[in-house]
Amino acid sequence: MNNMEASKFEKLRFVGSRPIRHDGLEKVTGQARYGADISFPQMLYGKILRSPYAHARIKSIDFSRALALEGVQAVVTSSDFPKPWLTDETGIDSKLINIKFSSNNVLAGEKVLYKGHAVAGVAASNAYIAEKALDLIDVSYEILPPILDVMQAIKVNAGIIHEGMFPYPESGLIASEFNSSLISNSTLDMSNHHQGDDSKYSNIAGYYIQEIGDIDKGFMDADVVVEREYNTGSVHQGYIEPHSATAIWNRDGKVTIWCSSQGHFGMRDQTAEVVGIPASDIKVIPMEIGGGFGGKTTVYLEPVVAMLSKKTGRPVKITMTRQEVFEGTGPTLGSYMKVKIGATKDGMITAAQALLAYEAGAFPGSPVNMGAQCIFAPYDIPNGKVEGFDILVNKPKVAAYRAPGAPAAAFAGETVIDELSCKLNIDPLLFRLKNSAKEGTRRISGPVFPRIGFLETVEASRIHPHYLSDFGGPNRGRGVAAGFWFNGSGPSSVIVNANADGTVSLIEGSPDIGGTRVAVAMHVAEVLGIPIADVHPSIGDTDSIGFTSMTGGSSVAFKTGWAAYQAAQDLKAQMIERASDIWDVEAGEVNLKDGKFNHSTNQDLQMDFKELAGMLNATGGPIVGRAAINPGGAGAAISVHIVDVEVDPETGKLTILRYTVVQDVGKAIHPDYVEGQMQGGAVQGIGWALNEEYIFDKEGVIKNPTFLDYRMPTSLDLPMIDTHIVEVNNPGHPYGVRGVGEVPIVPPMAAIANAINSAVGIRMNTLPMSPPVLLEALWANNGAGKVYGD
Amino acid sequence: MNNMEASKFEKLRFVGSRPIRHDGLEKVTGQARYGADISFPQMLYGKILRSPYAHARIKSIDFSRALALEGVQAVVTSSDFPKPWLTDETGIDSKLINIKFSSNNVLAGEKVLYKGHAVAGVAASNAYIAEKALDLIDVSYEILPPILDVMQAIKVNAGIIHEGMFPYPESGLIASEFNSSLISNSTLDMSNHHQGDDSKYSNIAGYYIQEIGDIDKGFMDADVVVEREYNTGSVHQGYIEPHSATAIWNRDGKVTIWCSSQGHFGMRDQTAEVVGIPASDIKVIPMEIGGGFGGKTTVYLEPVVAMLSKKTGRPVKITMTRQEVFEGTGPTLGSYMKVKIGATKDGMITAAQALLAYEAGAFPGSPVNMGAQCIFAPYDIPNGKVEGFDILVNKPKVAAYRAPGAPAAAFAGETVIDELSCKLNIDPLLFRLKNSAKEGTRRISGPVFPRIGFLETVEASRIHPHYLSDFGGPNRGRGVAAGFWFNGSGPSSVIVNANADGTVSLIEGSPDIGGTRVAVAMHVAEVLGIPIADVHPSIGDTDSIGFTSMTGGSSVAFKTGWAAYQAAQDLKAQMIERASDIWDVEAGEVNLKDGKFNHSTNQDLQMDFKELAGMLNATGGPIVGRAAINPGGAGAAISVHIVDVEVDPETGKLTILRYTVVQDVGKAIHPDYVEGQMQGGAVQGIGWALNEEYIFDKEGVIKNPTFLDYRMPTSLDLPMIDTHIVEVNNPGHPYGVRGVGEVPIVPPMAAIANAINSAVGIRMNTLPMSPPVLLEALWANNGAGKVYGD
Repeated sequence: MNNMEASKFEKLRFVGSRPIRHDGLEKVTGQARYGADISFPQMLYGKILRSPYAHARIKSIDFSRALALEGVQAVVTSSDFPKPWLTDETGIDSKLINIKFSSNNVLAGEKVLYKGHAVAGVAASNAYIAEKALDLIDVSYEILPPILDVMQAIKVNAGIIHEGMFPYPESGLIASEFNSSLISNSTLDMSNHHQGDDSKYSNIAGYYIQEIGDIDKGFMDADVVVEREYNTGSVHQGYIEPHSATAIWNRDGKVTIWCSSQGHFGMRDQTAEVVGIPASDIKVIPMEIGGGFGGKTTVYLEPVVAMLSKKTGRPVKITMTRQEVFEGTGPTLGSYMKVKIGATKDGMITAAQALLAYEAGAFPGSPVNMGAQCIFAPYDIPNGKVEGFDILVNKPKVAAYRAPGAPAAAFAGETVIDELSCKLNIDPLLFRLKNSAKEGTRRISGPVFPRIGFLETVEASRIHPHYLSDFGGPNRGRGVAAGFWFNGSGPSSVIVNANADGTVSLIEGSPDIGGTRVAVAMHVAEVLGIPIADVHPSIGDTDSIGFTSMTGGSSVAFKTGWAAYQAAQDLKAQMIERASDIWDVEAGEVNLKDGKFNHSTNQDLQMDFKELAGMLNATGGPIVGRAAINPGGAGAAISVHIVDVEVDPETGKLTILRYTVVQDVGKAIHPDYVEGQMQGGAVQGIGWALNEEYIFDKEGVIKNPTFLDYRMPTSLDLPMIDTHIVEVNNPGHPYGVRGVGEVPIVPPMAAIANAINSAVGIRMNTLPMSPPVLLEALWANNGAGKVYGD
Repeated sequence: MNNMEASKFEKLRFVGSRPIRHDGLEKVTGQARYGADISFPQMLYGKILRSPYAHARIKSIDFSRALALEGVQAVVTSSDFPKPWLTDETGIDSKLINIKFSSNNVLAGEKVLYKGHAVAGVAASNAYIAEKALDLIDVSYEILPPILDVMQAIKVNAGIIHEGMFPYPESGLIASEFNSSLISNSTLDMSNHHQGDDSKYSNIAGYYIQEIGDIDKGFMDADVVVEREYNTGSVHQGYIEPHSATAIWNRDGKVTIWCSSQGHFGMRDQTAEVVGIPASDIKVIPMEIGGGFGGKTTVYLEPVVAMLSKKTGRPVKITMTRQEVFEGTGPTLGSYMKVKIGATKDGMITAAQALLAYEAGAFPGSPVNMGAQCIFAPYDIPNGKVEGFDILVNKPKVAAYRAPGAPAAAFAGETVIDELSCKLNIDPLLFRLKNSAKEGTRRISGPVFPRIGFLETVEASRIHPHYLSDFGGPNRGRGVAAGFWFNGSGPSSVIVNANADGTVSLIEGSPDIGGTRVAVAMHVAEVLGIPIADVHPSIGDTDSIGFTSMTGGSSVAFKTGWAAYQAAQDLKAQMIERASDIWDVEAGEVNLKDGKFNHSTNQDLQMDFKELAGMLNATGGPIVGRAAINPGGAGAAISVHIVDVEVDPETGKLTILRYTVVQDVGKAIHPDYVEGQMQGGAVQGIGWALNEEYIFDKEGVIKNPTFLDYRMPTSLDLPMIDTHIVEVNNPGHPYGVRGVGEVPIVPPMAAIANAINSAVGIRMNTLPMSPPVLLEALWANNGAGKVYGD
């Protein structure tokens, strides 16, 4: 650990230590209860009928034969959901269009839009009958040609996934210099299109642009310009636990849902929209979550089980199979990207430009805007322009995946940076250091950076033993890449109760995916000066704790840690007041230090936290601390990855020889879990770089929807991932937290691509860089069998 | 409803209305989840082996044959519980003796002390195997003579239930004039007994005395003195839901328990004591409760399932049968009582004296102290003395039952009052009015009454149409009686969260037995000016809400209502501050009225509660209101009952012709549920008066442990119980609440006894006054068949 600056935080007692997490034993012994572990008397089991086609119009659904099967209790289809977007006048109320999209993704409306798209839900007395009933549902489809990538989607004759359902780019926006390459095969004239014009539609669901300086002048000032195109495919988050939801719809209209998610308030609010009742009529009880990485932020099953329970009056549970997870939930985006960067011969970037065309899947909403904001964020770009397109295709609607939008963009941006530094014969980390963004740098997207740790992180990378080591050998190479992520915030609520035995109960609204229970509890321990084991964290349901935004955006340790800090301060202030009442002194004369209440002058007046806690009920009542905040000041994260690889020129197989993650996390509250996040992010990035991909056939059918065929890296595939924590405290947080979880997935693809170039002299521009792809690239370059380097 | 005084509360909008309770539909449709409704994968089912003897020494327990039965996973006995009361030096640490009593009541220690006393717990893969395993546990007993009533218990040769285990009366305390009657057949010399002297023990577990004035002078001043003796038997609370508990003891030592109780914090703390772990290592999740009436304030199954789960590593559930509820939980006390009251001929009481000897059951702790404080509390007694004895017998340890201790005492006290007023030829309500306690009256127990409503309640009774009506006819009579109850308070915690849709989530720690969810929610609605249906109450588990004392003592509407009031005020203040931030004005210029935020002068600045609630997350974060209090100022309750009866002299059957409950409740928050409590209490009192009794054989075996043989009144047995709410606001509570649940069970036995006297001229002095008892009294009086009255 490398604490780069002496700070106001240096005397922390508990923050920065590595206690055992509160939920650890329960999880490793199998006692923790996940989504599928809930059951009730009279419970029904549900199954989902899914589309066999990637694109088809639903002409009719007849489920009378299914309902007639003994044991089948109910069938729901999209027609059971309310349709508030339909109005008498215009047909569609565009303000409510997002509800239509949510609803139609949960159960298909007029059309099925991807293979595996849910069409109907069945509830039966057991899962076998429910499954059998699926075969008895007769759906009549009019099959439409599927649209499977962005280049196909923008062709004028591509066919249209949604009509008039999404905002068009403003007229003329497409006339940037990049458009020709993207739109060249298309006769689409965007200036003729706007919302409400029914004559012609594209599959472009959104357009984003950011500009700074004078891009043309910037490129004219450059001595070297590199311009490259990239393509990436869909990958899945690959969480272990399949989605499962159980609902009870009471006859008074109140609904209770048990599910595992990254944010039970979000599940509540989305379900409320789809089923058309007030959010507060739904209580979502969070179960433990077996991985999410962004993929458990969206409802799939919840509205279906709710509606099935409403129809039957009984509890209903649905648990997905692995195939359903792959086909029916949200993978991350496939993309087409084009990046161009120019620099002077002394290594200063003069201009940078990017076009990102991201697949949204079947409904609008890829994270292209975030990719656009991240791609050049590590650098001080005097002249820049980034455009992003959100493009519909007949694939599952993309969901968030760890730093959503940024990894693909960094694959493009960071390989161009690498190529530039190679061309200029400047060490790639030195090149980054020269162009590094720092406090005061204005980003292309507009905002000016506060204190960030890019310089410190690159410096730490340059002097890391890994970077100083020799990586030589035949077919071996080293790559580096940087990654940027905002880190997020959002509303968060925490309650702390002082128990009579001196422990403190902590109730938070943030589901714990990566060990945040203990990190949040450490804030309370630090404020109160009591052992971390004496703080008992739990996750409250949506009726039991104030609104808390999802566990995502690397925000939990920041926002919920902060809320816990504040709630503990509230508890502390009240306990000091109680101590002063008991001692009959002024509250201002009492302090709490190292878990002991003291009087400022009278040394006889001392009380342990435990002692006072035991007296509360009898001296005015229990004490509850609370905080509900939506803090600004989230601190951005930078990560630099160093990777050594060896390419087998006979097979295209790449071996990771050594891998190091250097990252500024602000303050590492619990370094074990910070390191775990850094390692986990890197490993997911490595999988994305080397092996993971959805293999679609030409009909849009996924050919590898199992973990046997969808190849994720295992511990046998990888060396130990080394980590180096940089701590440039975030001045916006009481203990300096920035966030950690997402940015480590951003650099791996670029770092490995750069290492491949270092090893075998090939610039890869597609993902995954799997053995067959790499082998073809080797063949195309110089024929197989050539030994590179050394 | 009779609002007796203009008050600060008169402009209440929601308090005093009759909305549908939030949990109503769920309960009437069978969807609410009670103790037995929880289950888990891998769950084991438990059964309890119970003693066939009322008193025996356990020589040995051999459960090897049970453990050998296929499917049996574990057996626990008392030896599995820690015994912190055992010390190396003295053998017993008297400070910890209550833990021994709790532990030994849960699973018998050296001795079994009542028929049905739990001896061992078994966990097996299903309930049938567990039951079969009970037969395979070999317990060797040394049978001891059972002690079955207080008069037997105090005989010197009675045998001893506990040795040296309870505090003795101070020497000489027994020398009151009543002692001769109680102790006359005993040679017990109390002055020779104290703790630590092993030579001689009694079964007297406690002694209480209260005195005021000069009792001898008081009786000398009397023109008329009435002195009577009474005996009452054990009755059960008769709640519908049998006890059920399910526990998971995780390998990290954390325990989760699901059960229905009147206070999950109490269940947690008692279980922690018995199993010997810190309270905060246990989380108790409250299920809905199907009746308690005081009987669900004590652990029976919880420590057993916890220990069985610890042994097996699996969830364990035990649900009692009805017979187990009767034999193995806490009924209320049987008693011997003697009461003497003197009055002048113009109807002023000069002296009152009572001796109450209450059965504690097998362990110390009858509510005799409360009976002693209540018996004369409605009256201004210039000279008084009340003594109470807590006496061990071989019956189940008594538990609380609705106004614990008071009903038996009132049966004695109020029939003597009636007899006095008859002898003096003064209307019995006028007699009570003349002697009524009022604000400023000093009670025999010491405290001076604040504002109470006895005068108002008796006045309301005197002018009630029922009291003014004719009740004449052969064998018909009318009785009245008054009852007193303290009403309680205690620590209580409430959290309120403003939801984005304008509703408010309310989390409280008070289990809802009689409709308190809605009553507590109404406090929040009143403060915030939002509809009651928009306040969503729920009961938090012990990790989710601050400490809250049990639902008992008629305290919930008072303490938790108050906490909700205060939490809502906290929410309101923060929302006003947020509104002022949004409007950029001073917080002091903003108010909340009728659910709308207004600026004091600028009429353009207005916002609905809903509107502001929807803006919170984006304008600084959610808002949480909290309160944790232990309020004083609970207001005492008075109830006067009027009953008309007809006695069938052929059979001794008594018919209730008309019944009216007049009661001061302070402010009736929700009059429907206030009336329901008044009716329910009266009905339970009527059952106790006329039919309910434990029938013990001479070995202490209960012969009627089912609802078929234990006769509770049904709706067919009773007329509609009329209610008349008197509202003398309690100045100690924000809305004037006193409490309602308990006092209506206090007067019925005396009122009915007085009505019997009015009908057939017989003074009953035992309970129940069932047909055979009444018939024998009729025969003893004048022979059967005589027509009385008219």
